[in-house]
Amino acid sequence: MKQDRQDGARATVNAIKDLILSEHLRPGDPMPTEVDLVEKLGVSRSSVREAIRTLVALDILEVRHGTGTFVGQLSLRPLVEGMVFRGVLLPGDDLSVLREVVEVRKGLDLSLAPRVVERLSGADTADLRVCVEEMKVLAAQHTTYPVQDRQFHLNLAERLGNALYGQLVAAFWDIHTTVAPRLGVVGQRDLDVTAAAHEAMLDAAVSGDLEAYRAAVEAHYDPILRVLDDRHLVTAS
Amino acid sequence: MKQDRQDGARATVNAIKDLILSEHLRPGDPMPTEVDLVEKLGVSRSSVREAIRTLVALDILEVRHGTGTFVGQLSLRPLVEGMVFRGVLLPGDDLSVLREVVEVRKGLDLSLAPRVVERLSGADTADLRVCVEEMKVLAAQHTTYPVQDRQFHLNLAERLGNALYGQLVAAFWDIHTTVAPRLGVVGQRDLDVTAAAHEAMLDAAVSGDLEAYRAAVEAHYDPILRVLDDRHLVTAS
Repeated sequence: MKQDRQDGARATVNAIKDLILSEHLRPGDPMPTEVDLVEKLGVSRSSVREAIRTLVALDILEVRHGTGTFVGQLSLRPLVEGMVFRGVLLPGDDLSVLREVVEVRKGLDLSLAPRVVERLSGADTADLRVCVEEMKVLAAQHTTYPVQDRQFHLNLAERLGNALYGQLVAAFWDIHTTVAPRLGVVGQRDLDVTAAAHEAMLDAAVSGDLEAYRAAVEAHYDPILRVLDDRHLVTAS
Repeated sequence: MKQDRQDGARATVNAIKDLILSEHLRPGDPMPTEVDLVEKLGVSRSSVREAIRTLVALDILEVRHGTGTFVGQLSLRPLVEGMVFRGVLLPGDDLSVLREVVEVRKGLDLSLAPRVVERLSGADTADLRVCVEEMKVLAAQHTTYPVQDRQFHLNLAERLGNALYGQLVAAFWDIHTTVAPRLGVVGQRDLDVTAAAHEAMLDAAVSGDLEAYRAAVEAHYDPILRVLDDRHLVTAS
């Protein structure tokens, strides 16, 4: 009985996905109503509701209040939600999950290094320069600058002609900055050092110096990784 | 009314997450029953059901038939499910989403290169050697070798002391190999070339040669990327 309900829900999820594909719907397009889906797919209303709930969680569908159900943005939001929860639930004695996230961020930036340097060398980088200048001003005021930090990494990734990379960079930035405070890891104290590391990344890329760019990426992440090595989780028990 | 239901569902999702955290539950631990959750959280049964559905989609909960609900594995399965759908739905005229996935795979492998070479040089690599030998035998028989291919990349990632990296490598392998055939991109013909590329990666890593390892990674992915450049999507209309 329960097995049947479970299989029914899975089958309905797949049927709705097939419908989106066969009708060539795109993100933002309106979906048929719940009643229409019940008719079209020949399943119960509760199966349709459960399937919609699953597909909303995966950002394959989106429910807008008062207007109906639409094809979702197919974003990496489910990755962020799951990973943030995992980071908080399974911190490990040495904050190992958070450390892994920061290592992945560093790895992504290093793997993008050749392309970043190629795209930025001699290019107009006014948007990135503004981010860096604002970081420096805020650092001098002992103020954190998460908005400018995220913008810097996003603007960098956007120039690479690979939207997925940009989304991964943003997703892991979000996971990192959501998990860290929940584990009691305070924002890095070295605001000046971090602002300078971003400036060094930009300067190296603009001047086409791949090795200097890689060194600046290391200088950006290594203080964060050191903080995670030094700190052990203080449980709130 | 609908807004209320939506907010209620979101609040219930968060309440269940908080419960998992406050009770220090771990993946695989049993959850309270639906009835208990209704009581504990003071919400309707339908809210609890909807919230469970959302959390199952994110692999934060897992429903096992006949036994009940458990804390999920917090895997990257939601990432794979969403990305596979996105790859099929939004292929782009030039298979751009699939191309982005392959570029991310290549980027991950390149970013791991220094650590792979450090860990493998002079180490026991019998498991990886078996994968490569089987690939070569199958290639000679004009047979594809997805099992050995996935195993190779997984075993490699497992040695790096970062479980998240291993899961990302596996997730993007799965996305790539699920999306490609659905878009009519046949498995790469050059079975020999690909088997040899894996062998070259292994040989370079064992001998501690970082540059040769990087070159072998490029040799592994570049034929796949070339196929995607050459091919334009044949829609089945």
